[in-house]
Amino acid sequence: MSASEALPAVLDRIDRDLDASLERLFALLRIQSVSTDPAYAPQCRAAAEHVAADLRTLGLQTSVRPTEGHPVVVGKTNGQAADGKGPRILFYGHYDVQPVDPLDLWETPPFEPRIETLDGGRKIIVARGACDDKGQAMTFVEACRAFKGVTGRLPLDITMMIEGEEECGSKHLFGFVRDNAAEFKRDLALVCDTGMWDVETPSITTSLRGLVYEEVRLTCADRDLHSGLFGGAARNPIHVLAGVLSALHKPDGSIAIPGFYDGVRELPPDIKADLAGLDLTPEKFLGQVGLKIPAGEKDRMVIEQVSTRPTAEVNGIIGGYTGEGAKTVIPGKAMAKVSFRLVGAQDPEKIRAAFRDFVRARLPADCTVEFGNFTSAPAFDVAFDNPALTKARAALAEEWGKKALAMGSGGSIPIVGDFKTVLGMDTLMVGFALDDDRVHSPNEKYDLKCFHKGIRSWARILAALAG
Amino acid sequence: MSASEALPAVLDRIDRDLDASLERLFALLRIQSVSTDPAYAPQCRAAAEHVAADLRTLGLQTSVRPTEGHPVVVGKTNGQAADGKGPRILFYGHYDVQPVDPLDLWETPPFEPRIETLDGGRKIIVARGACDDKGQAMTFVEACRAFKGVTGRLPLDITMMIEGEEECGSKHLFGFVRDNAAEFKRDLALVCDTGMWDVETPSITTSLRGLVYEEVRLTCADRDLHSGLFGGAARNPIHVLAGVLSALHKPDGSIAIPGFYDGVRELPPDIKADLAGLDLTPEKFLGQVGLKIPAGEKDRMVIEQVSTRPTAEVNGIIGGYTGEGAKTVIPGKAMAKVSFRLVGAQDPEKIRAAFRDFVRARLPADCTVEFGNFTSAPAFDVAFDNPALTKARAALAEEWGKKALAMGSGGSIPIVGDFKTVLGMDTLMVGFALDDDRVHSPNEKYDLKCFHKGIRSWARILAALAG
Repeated sequence: MSASEALPAVLDRIDRDLDASLERLFALLRIQSVSTDPAYAPQCRAAAEHVAADLRTLGLQTSVRPTEGHPVVVGKTNGQAADGKGPRILFYGHYDVQPVDPLDLWETPPFEPRIETLDGGRKIIVARGACDDKGQAMTFVEACRAFKGVTGRLPLDITMMIEGEEECGSKHLFGFVRDNAAEFKRDLALVCDTGMWDVETPSITTSLRGLVYEEVRLTCADRDLHSGLFGGAARNPIHVLAGVLSALHKPDGSIAIPGFYDGVRELPPDIKADLAGLDLTPEKFLGQVGLKIPAGEKDRMVIEQVSTRPTAEVNGIIGGYTGEGAKTVIPGKAMAKVSFRLVGAQDPEKIRAAFRDFVRARLPADCTVEFGNFTSAPAFDVAFDNPALTKARAALAEEWGKKALAMGSGGSIPIVGDFKTVLGMDTLMVGFALDDDRVHSPNEKYDLKCFHKGIRSWARILAALAG
Repeated sequence: MSASEALPAVLDRIDRDLDASLERLFALLRIQSVSTDPAYAPQCRAAAEHVAADLRTLGLQTSVRPTEGHPVVVGKTNGQAADGKGPRILFYGHYDVQPVDPLDLWETPPFEPRIETLDGGRKIIVARGACDDKGQAMTFVEACRAFKGVTGRLPLDITMMIEGEEECGSKHLFGFVRDNAAEFKRDLALVCDTGMWDVETPSITTSLRGLVYEEVRLTCADRDLHSGLFGGAARNPIHVLAGVLSALHKPDGSIAIPGFYDGVRELPPDIKADLAGLDLTPEKFLGQVGLKIPAGEKDRMVIEQVSTRPTAEVNGIIGGYTGEGAKTVIPGKAMAKVSFRLVGAQDPEKIRAAFRDFVRARLPADCTVEFGNFTSAPAFDVAFDNPALTKARAALAEEWGKKALAMGSGGSIPIVGDFKTVLGMDTLMVGFALDDDRVHSPNEKYDLKCFHKGIRSWARILAALAG
């Protein structure tokens, strides 16, 4: 029986098994696997062991793999899967959660999961990790379990990698992936750690912006000067810095660094039309944080500005006297942190070099600059004609009864970049989080509908990929 | 015998009396009158009593006047002076000194004054306060003493006000002057707390720049934002602030705020020619602090830029993340401190209002600003055709054999502003300090030549004013 043939029975089993799926999720949610606090290392270990035991019930060859931090759970079908057709899958999720403070803002204890019924009958799962990422990761695990129950095996060759340090930067995962590249290099990665457009509209995150982060340290005079004695003749590095920073953007909101847009791609017309159809107004998007006028490229929709267009932002600036009251100083030094979100094929190192040239070109001869280089990562994107993407979008549309969006995310998930650059593998990011899930905040929740239909969605996607 | 007729004998007496003058200065220098440290309050009191006793030897009606801080010594001729011709004088000086730390950098103890002979025979007086302001103030006192010795009285009606809090901001003097305005309102104030152009070139400081100090606090979003999620659409207050600050100056170095130059006066051609003759190159002036290119108005000499031209300076700026490493934040707020040095008849309150309009005109509609107002003071200047100035310049030229400069000072001496605004009186600032006097630093010194010829200079000035 092919995965597609099995799908109706798999979906039926998912529906019938929902209470048991919830019980399994609750058991995981009860484990206080806060990765950022060393005091919770035993609980992180317990969560890893718990996940491993669960994966073993799916017939996966499972191990809890040590790192210098919290362990990574790895489970593999190892040839036990279906018929060898379809892509070999690496699924990524994480069992660790954010700290719970401020604890007094939680309506019920964060590690005592519960179902709450809201006005109108909407049911939500409330607990730390209900969404991020225990609930989301379990949608995939439960879909696999349903296949296993119906067909006796998983529909594809699947390797699961469930890590324990996502909430503290995945710092040991990068080396772990690099050191075991052959083991984790599959045909396609799937990640369930992103969101839907809204509770009715499924989405696949098809791009993540890259990042270049620079520190600019200017020096003019070799000491701080008295503005009475030197004011009018001495160069002020804050003025120089303000001049450089204000030149970064043109009046039309675009970025003025020569060559900056090299490698930026236009969205295909159908994708752009989908985004336009969302009608995300500036009032709606910016109103939530007290703003109303988009600051970016004037000829772009807000949703493009924050997801598929590159940016230049000053993340911090300091110079001179910043305490209480007045001090009439002309500082010798001033510093700014400047970062760029990248898209498409923008080259981080070329952007970095172009930015540095841009700064140097604006310095008087007696002003010097030092640069600090903190990080860089290229953007990640899946080609819009990737067949796996097309299949997954169709599968989501069937489940939700609505076209699935292919959207960019403005942020970064660094490990996805490594899947591409180190393992040479595309990633489909499919997730069911909603904007109001209070991820990282008190009273984190996950809609029961998202959990349930999330499991069904993965079943459909797996069947589509296997078909 | 008129003061002018007495002058040759007075100068002769000064020369013959120099050792005794030095002894009297040394006695004052031995008193540890550090005004900023409450532990030295008894020494400040002792210095005041010492000065008062000395003024009594000049026949002045003298009192040590209490304030909430250190006392003010006041001595008055009270009709005992010459013939009632010439202006009534208020002389201002201060008996307090700066702290001496770091003590280990002093070659000899700071309160054990000594004469040192440098290579080439130049003699210097070394002690804390040797120049600022005990040495300088005593040049005036000794000139008066010489007149008293030769003619039996002082050549003019003179009130001396020697305060004890100049090094901690003269904070009680302002109220003291205001409360006793009738007593201290004379025709002309004389101050000996400034410097010469160089060891051969006498100077009178004829203007002090005023000050307006503002704090600009911008708010865009109502919280800090993640640059991945909001970057490209959300307004960044650092960008807005950089735009405002970089617009403050035009490419020619002038200040772009409308109306800013209202009330700025041009120097008379002869004064400007004097300044040009000094040939203060950017290399010489800015080279001392590691700079070389003047940052101010391109059509002005450096010496104008730092003394007789107004300025706009950003004294401090802060916003967003300024710690170690990278944080991808778009801050909700950013702040800068901005000050203006004023000259001529520039109106501080008009400048403040114009600056605020300038800022507001550059804000997007969803960005708000709050201003903090720290201080303002108008500029002070003496008219170049003031007869007392003309006489004093001529007297200095006779003593030093070189034309005396009439120069602006870029900084402020706030009490001189009050002499003008509260007492309605001009001030001539005549001093004999040199750039290498290490004022406020270890091994403070005063050239013996400056002390000696300073006394002679005052004798000549007093005679000229009396004549």
